[in-house]
Amino acid sequence: MVLRRLYISKITLYRLCLYARELRRLVAEGEQIVSSEHLARACGVSPAQIRKDLAYFGHFGIKGVGYQVEDLLGELEKILGLSRERHLVLVGVGRLGSALLKHWGANHSLYRFVAAFDSRPERIGRIVNRVMIYPREQMGYIVHQHQVELAVITTPAEAAQEVAEELIQAGIKGILNFAPITLQLPEDIQVENVDLSLFLDMLASQTGR
Amino acid sequence: MVLRRLYISKITLYRLCLYARELRRLVAEGEQIVSSEHLARACGVSPAQIRKDLAYFGHFGIKGVGYQVEDLLGELEKILGLSRERHLVLVGVGRLGSALLKHWGANHSLYRFVAAFDSRPERIGRIVNRVMIYPREQMGYIVHQHQVELAVITTPAEAAQEVAEELIQAGIKGILNFAPITLQLPEDIQVENVDLSLFLDMLASQTGR
Repeated sequence: MVLRRLYISKITLYRLCLYARELRRLVAEGEQIVSSEHLARACGVSPAQIRKDLAYFGHFGIKGVGYQVEDLLGELEKILGLSRERHLVLVGVGRLGSALLKHWGANHSLYRFVAAFDSRPERIGRIVNRVMIYPREQMGYIVHQHQVELAVITTPAEAAQEVAEELIQAGIKGILNFAPITLQLPEDIQVENVDLSLFLDMLASQTGR
Repeated sequence: MVLRRLYISKITLYRLCLYARELRRLVAEGEQIVSSEHLARACGVSPAQIRKDLAYFGHFGIKGVGYQVEDLLGELEKILGLSRERHLVLVGVGRLGSALLKHWGANHSLYRFVAAFDSRPERIGRIVNRVMIYPREQMGYIVHQHQVELAVITTPAEAAQEVAEELIQAGIKGILNFAPITLQLPEDIQVENVDLSLFLDMLASQTGR
């Protein structure tokens, strides 16, 4: 409960999520101890940065040995709130949307898609990787009923703002937005933008203008 | 040629790419003039920031009127190096990889996928959205032959580092990495990481820990 109110900057949060990702990989490989040097290299940060980040949360490795992998992961997941299941929905089941449903459904236990939504009649009622596609009109009701916290938007750009507003009204707290548009949202709503074409533009503009 | 050597920070580059995206949308809608207030709102930045960014590149709007949409877009694309076609490859044609081939093939003229690669025999020779899937062994040769500049990696985490090294040896300058791993690469290689699960972790950790 104290941690809940702890302010963590977004860039620190990103590093902590990277550490957790690497620790999960180490757990899967049966590793028990990890040095800050290894963790640093694997995450692309400096060992000093890692020690600083972790010390900040009261976690200190054993000098000359390293960190207990499972302990550290457990603590990080608690700090990050990644130890409980989240309900998600996905809106816009085109090519990208259905690929994501298939991709995540297979890889995740922490995030559970409880429903997908689309406005095209021919898509309604289909099941993609055990997730049913419902009509857009039922979105608010289902999100509210299932206490859905996060949403993935894979609609065309024109539809995204309206969809986002409706989701927020129904109780959504965070949005992963794949639509190529900047959403205008209240400040307490978290958004991560993943415009795939924008990433290509970024790369292109950094390589041989 | 002078612009080529101009140093632009990554965060500025990101904003410029956002402006270009919005300007393309305005061009498509037939708009001729845009105010810095509109552009700012649409991109989620302040009008002062936009004016500063554009003045830096010697572009000034007409006071009280705004910017000529097409002129400004043309200039931005020149600065960003987005006015010429780029050759791309995609490595790892699983669910996500083939969804991306379909998604981009339909939406883009600037980025042309010249080939895709996979190591599974049953995928070789297939054509996804007019892009042929070749065996991994031919990757270096084809990348070199077609002067490919950018690559999209959608392999499993275990394969990504080796694939990246081989791509770089063949001449790739930028990588869009979907594999959930931090690639260890030379400093002159540009990388954008898009770990979709990490985005969910980021959102979850910001909404109700």
